Amino acid sequence: MSSRQELANAIRALSMDAVEAAKSGHPGMPMGMADIAEVLWNDFLSHNPSNPHWVNRDRFVLSNGHGSMLLYSLLHLTGYDLPIGELKNFRQLHSRTAGHPERHETPGVETTTGPLGQGLANAVGMALAEKVLAARFNRADYPVVDHYTYVFLGDGCLMEGISHEVCSLAGTFKLGKLVALYDDNNISIDGKVGGWFTDDTAARFEAYGWEVIRDVDGHNAEAIKAAIVSAGADADKPTLICCKTIIGYGAPNKQNTEGAHGAPLGKDEIALAREKLGWNHAPFHVPDAIYDAWNAQSKGAERETRWNALFERYRNVHPELAAEFERRVNGELPADWAAHSDAYVARLQAEGPVIASRKASQMALDAFGPKLPELIGGSADLAHSNLTLWKGSKDVNSGDANANYVYFGVREFGMTAIANGMALHGGFIPYDATFLVFSDYARNAVRMSALIPAHAIHVYTHDSIGLGEDGPTHQPIEHLASLRYIPNNRVWRPCDAVESAVSWKSAIERRNGPSCLVFSRQNLQHQQRNAEQLADIARGGYVLSDPNDATFKAILIATGSEVGLAMDAMRTLELQGVRVRVVSMPCTEQFDAQPAEYREGVLPSWCRARVAIEAAHPDFWRKYVGLDGDVVGIASFGASAPADKLFAHFGFSVERIVDAVKARI
Amino acid sequence: MSSRQELANAIRALSMDAVEAAKSGHPGMPMGMADIAEVLWNDFLSHNPSNPHWVNRDRFVLSNGHGSMLLYSLLHLTGYDLPIGELKNFRQLHSRTAGHPERHETPGVETTTGPLGQGLANAVGMALAEKVLAARFNRADYPVVDHYTYVFLGDGCLMEGISHEVCSLAGTFKLGKLVALYDDNNISIDGKVGGWFTDDTAARFEAYGWEVIRDVDGHNAEAIKAAIVSAGADADKPTLICCKTIIGYGAPNKQNTEGAHGAPLGKDEIALAREKLGWNHAPFHVPDAIYDAWNAQSKGAERETRWNALFERYRNVHPELAAEFERRVNGELPADWAAHSDAYVARLQAEGPVIASRKASQMALDAFGPKLPELIGGSADLAHSNLTLWKGSKDVNSGDANANYVYFGVREFGMTAIANGMALHGGFIPYDATFLVFSDYARNAVRMSALIPAHAIHVYTHDSIGLGEDGPTHQPIEHLASLRYIPNNRVWRPCDAVESAVSWKSAIERRNGPSCLVFSRQNLQHQQRNAEQLADIARGGYVLSDPNDATFKAILIATGSEVGLAMDAMRTLELQGVRVRVVSMPCTEQFDAQPAEYREGVLPSWCRARVAIEAAHPDFWRKYVGLDGDVVGIASFGASAPADKLFAHFGFSVERIVDAVKARI
Repeated sequence: MSSRQELANAIRALSMDAVEAAKSGHPGMPMGMADIAEVLWNDFLSHNPSNPHWVNRDRFVLSNGHGSMLLYSLLHLTGYDLPIGELKNFRQLHSRTAGHPERHETPGVETTTGPLGQGLANAVGMALAEKVLAARFNRADYPVVDHYTYVFLGDGCLMEGISHEVCSLAGTFKLGKLVALYDDNNISIDGKVGGWFTDDTAARFEAYGWEVIRDVDGHNAEAIKAAIVSAGADADKPTLICCKTIIGYGAPNKQNTEGAHGAPLGKDEIALAREKLGWNHAPFHVPDAIYDAWNAQSKGAERETRWNALFERYRNVHPELAAEFERRVNGELPADWAAHSDAYVARLQAEGPVIASRKASQMALDAFGPKLPELIGGSADLAHSNLTLWKGSKDVNSGDANANYVYFGVREFGMTAIANGMALHGGFIPYDATFLVFSDYARNAVRMSALIPAHAIHVYTHDSIGLGEDGPTHQPIEHLASLRYIPNNRVWRPCDAVESAVSWKSAIERRNGPSCLVFSRQNLQHQQRNAEQLADIARGGYVLSDPNDATFKAILIATGSEVGLAMDAMRTLELQGVRVRVVSMPCTEQFDAQPAEYREGVLPSWCRARVAIEAAHPDFWRKYVGLDGDVVGIASFGASAPADKLFAHFGFSVERIVDAVKARI
Repeated sequence: MSSRQELANAIRALSMDAVEAAKSGHPGMPMGMADIAEVLWNDFLSHNPSNPHWVNRDRFVLSNGHGSMLLYSLLHLTGYDLPIGELKNFRQLHSRTAGHPERHETPGVETTTGPLGQGLANAVGMALAEKVLAARFNRADYPVVDHYTYVFLGDGCLMEGISHEVCSLAGTFKLGKLVALYDDNNISIDGKVGGWFTDDTAARFEAYGWEVIRDVDGHNAEAIKAAIVSAGADADKPTLICCKTIIGYGAPNKQNTEGAHGAPLGKDEIALAREKLGWNHAPFHVPDAIYDAWNAQSKGAERETRWNALFERYRNVHPELAAEFERRVNGELPADWAAHSDAYVARLQAEGPVIASRKASQMALDAFGPKLPELIGGSADLAHSNLTLWKGSKDVNSGDANANYVYFGVREFGMTAIANGMALHGGFIPYDATFLVFSDYARNAVRMSALIPAHAIHVYTHDSIGLGEDGPTHQPIEHLASLRYIPNNRVWRPCDAVESAVSWKSAIERRNGPSCLVFSRQNLQHQQRNAEQLADIARGGYVLSDPNDATFKAILIATGSEVGLAMDAMRTLELQGVRVRVVSMPCTEQFDAQPAEYREGVLPSWCRARVAIEAAHPDFWRKYVGLDGDVVGIASFGASAPADKLFAHFGFSVERIVDAVKARI
């Protein structure tokens, strides 16, 4: 039998060796948390290395993601498809061992971490998902959803504001199956944390309604084990286990200093550490006995087999629930989804309501929501402004977690990262909402939605100076462009109720990344479309209006509230004998992804007389109008006044568009 | 004598009336906090309405900025230059009473608030500035810097993560003259907060090392007064006063509900409120006796006169200190600044070090820092990566606040908003730092730097895939464009040590807004320049290289690390007989602000064969290269690998640039 210490040392050795080979990385955290990881993974974590997608596995999140070698070591040692060659290629191009854990690269990585605090937030989202899914699907004697979410975190995660947002919510939501293990090593990158981090963290978490287990020796397996057992006891409280650890444990000269944090230890120190740890093996060599003791494949297969048997019995007794469960966790939409959603869009086109697109968004929720019990979401304390509540909404904190609405409170960043976590858990399509300008607060979590990728829907209302009196602190200018530039993101800014419904439909159907749905506060015109135009909305950009004989001298390109203005300008120009095309471009990234012929059909190269109109930063549109075109936009901050006054003040008028076109033909 | 209740009711009536007239706004908070404001402003706040810029005034920050009518009422009633006509024009175009308080619009508004939590963060910055400035300039018997910072805040501010970051730091930094008054009314926009905000806030703040005064009746003047007196007692602890209040106090049907929060009360409810409050005056009418009781002009003038006398005695005894103090609080640079900084830039040009621009940034701090004791800053736990420590750095938390370095911890958002607050306080040029990708965490505070505007310098290192192994979570793609699109921002991405020094110089000299200085992790080439080119760096874009006879067929435009690549491509093209111009564009916004002739001189209209090169999202550059040009950029996420491997992998090669040029000439 290998001792627990030896098992933990395998992590330490692999971490030292991989960082040394890469000449880059963070050995300190893996060496410091190795004992905690060893106890958690060997004595508690319910998982199956042969099937990282087993639905009822415990989730493990490494929020202090710079310690990625800890996770890679665990995945390798327990038998995931991550051979030693990958560890030798740590941080190299095309390896599956990136500098920070990346879900889309590495089997067994539950979420992409590195940006501090967000792993913790994802974990809160996963624990919330587990609770809600369990409330929906579990039946007496059939706990088909029943797992823990474990998260490792460090001082950095706890300093970040997002830790406050999500841990406060975790307490309020009584996420009793969330267990956080805090690497309390007293060191951050700049050194001993006493100069900048003096919180009584235990007291802080008690103030959130958490159970806190203090002063656990993070290098004593029995103490760790007792703490994790105790963490499971209170079903109504998430638990923080404060583990006193030594960063870089085992490296005789660098341990307990910031020198162990983020750089290779160096050959000499590694040799000394091997000696001190009693690990007399070559670099990257792990003895078979150690591998055997770590291997979790058969234990994991047994666990999943038992659960599969349970699920089969469940299926016999509750066949409809079982089918619905499988549909949801497989991320499949209902069989009649396409027909149902297409019919709704067609009906809207026929009815032509003149409403704010935020209202159209709520109508889309009312139309689609009853078909999609997997839809779960809410707003950062702006339910009645974002219009995220719909007729079927039920608050998850109402005492009955079989619900679908989350009052996130004023916590934009936490909300968004929680939505990412719920999406990653499976069984849900989460949405969140705030004013567009406050997408800033959530910004890196939106980026992470795209990078992970997570199927989350971010709803942003009050999309321009059109929000009026709240003024420049609340009026987005640079936000549309900034969101569009996030790789793998989709930003929809629909021009009427029809495009709003299509934007929701597209976001729901887009599984491999997030969508940002951007809606107006004020009413928008309804636009006429034939069947082809209606179908082309989903392409992100299409010809909304052409002269009767399809000859035109200029193209107007617009989004959202400015499409109506472009149509008005088109009509005025027509009266003056100037024929123009109007292109509605609700999603530029979707348009850019169309085949070249389609794009050429909408924006033919021969026509350089192009004017883009959007109440946002104009420079973004140069990619479509070039140096020869013009943009009616707004490059300064807005102002506080009624919306109509502001649009006039900032030059969003038919006259200005007409002049811009005439100057170019 | 008017009763305290009557004085507070003047605020309530003005707030109801103004919101009603505007048909928009937030009456609930001003009505709820009126009694607290009355006590604070009449019994404690040391200020002079006739001189809002008096250096030693107490600072008052309305962090729950939606309650702007509270502040406008206070400014109006105490005698600031804000006549009743402005209140009648609340939220109208060109008024000085914007929907949220804006420092650049309204005398007496210390900072622009509305984005929740940031006012609190600004206040922490102001209190930190006061402490550091006092430590530097006060002498026995001459407390020339000696004021409190008061901040009003609500549930929203406390839910936001930034409140955690900055209040934790305020405790660590022992900001004993910071007093926060919490409007504990149990209501946020979505309703009673119990469903989403169940923190024990008092316990939370005690965990930060604050003094907390619980359960103060926010409608009892004596209780409020006693609490504020008590708050001043402990010089080492900031104080949170938890005031139990009733939102919309006085509106009989809407008070204590979210209905009072963010919409006009309506004529009928206002009439009932007038009755209930005993305020029998016409809309916007305040009796003279009430005005007289509120007026703080003579009291304020006396206070400032006393301070002026103190300062004159100080000047007699400490003439050099007094002169330095005046220079700093007036925001003037040292007399020899221009000569000193120009000489440094010229020396660098001659010496031509080949170093990372982050290292060049640190050298600039070493060169400029000794001349600029007003420079204060630090990093979000990345001092040795951002290279923000310089030879003259001394930690403000070392026990001696006469210092200039701030260990902000892992708190990017709080750090940035604290820097804004220090800049607004006066006497400092603050800088902050993190990796460029984590500007996301701070994003709305960067926007606020630009909107307020605040003279803050945001240092962002590790500016591209060039950071290498940390991988896509750490590699900025969309960030440069996103920061450039923030109105009134300046983003510098220098190509060598010389441009790096100029970027620091420009940021230090730019008083009316922020600058973002973006530096590389990796070494950069040095570029040759003549005197004219050297001078033109400050214009943001200039011709770095032309063929000998100044004839060229194409233009390469690049920034930062890609300028060296562009120069290499230029040399290769020259060998192939293709003559190109190379434009270095370290700051596009600065370049855009140049006269048209200058811009035409650099980028002549006739030349459409333009290729931009930047290791960031390519679409931004379409504004310079149009539809006919090309961009060598990166529109996807990066990857984890050594930097040179990544540049090759993502196509940043001489060959690709050469091909792009040849395809266009």
